[in-house]
Amino acid sequence: MQKVNIRDEFASIDEYWSQHIVGEANGTLIKLAKGTGSTTWHAHDDQDEVFLVHRGTLLVELRDQTVTLEAGELLVVPRGVEHRPRAAGDVELLVLGRSITSTPEGGKPAWSATA
Amino acid sequence: MQKVNIRDEFASIDEYWSQHIVGEANGTLIKLAKGTGSTTWHAHDDQDEVFLVHRGTLLVELRDQTVTLEAGELLVVPRGVEHRPRAAGDVELLVLGRSITSTPEGGKPAWSATA
Repeated sequence: MQKVNIRDEFASIDEYWSQHIVGEANGTLIKLAKGTGSTTWHAHDDQDEVFLVHRGTLLVELRDQTVTLEAGELLVVPRGVEHRPRAAGDVELLVLGRSITSTPEGGKPAWSATA
Repeated sequence: MQKVNIRDEFASIDEYWSQHIVGEANGTLIKLAKGTGSTTWHAHDDQDEVFLVHRGTLLVELRDQTVTLEAGELLVVPRGVEHRPRAAGDVELLVLGRSITSTPEGGKPAWSATA
């Protein structure tokens, strides 16, 4: 049984808005992602999504409000709710969900580490 | 939709080894707990359990090893695996699981905030 050091894992992530699985429990994936700029608007009809900020500031835009998350703050976005995560500068996130959603269908825009 | 500030939530917890639910997603509860000393040995046959240390040091004793978790480190304890969480001093934890396990059956010893 191996522990996970979140800081070390983030150091190995070199692409934005790509979810990196670090654990699984009861069908929920524990995922880490770096963000900059924003994704496109999207919703997940099959799963709730949890954003927990590890470092930096994440603005979760919803159609009726924007929720600003600093380090140590989390938001549960229920399934079906349209959202657009937007980073103020660079942000490091822990994301909980049933599957990888950092896909074009999941709202991930085109990004590269060198852009 | 309300965000959760983990530090503020911990400030409101006045009992050790009691899980305080701050969110739910896909049947997984996001729980916070303060620990001191240790629980008793126990296992959860119905669910995996995730420990993520927010502050302090947690030693997760297993029958064949002890895993030391500092802030920003996590461990997934699979269902059925005997474990005993032990705090080095006081510790603040984020716990993921399908239900509240901080019960006598879940290994919680008798504690009070004034002990």
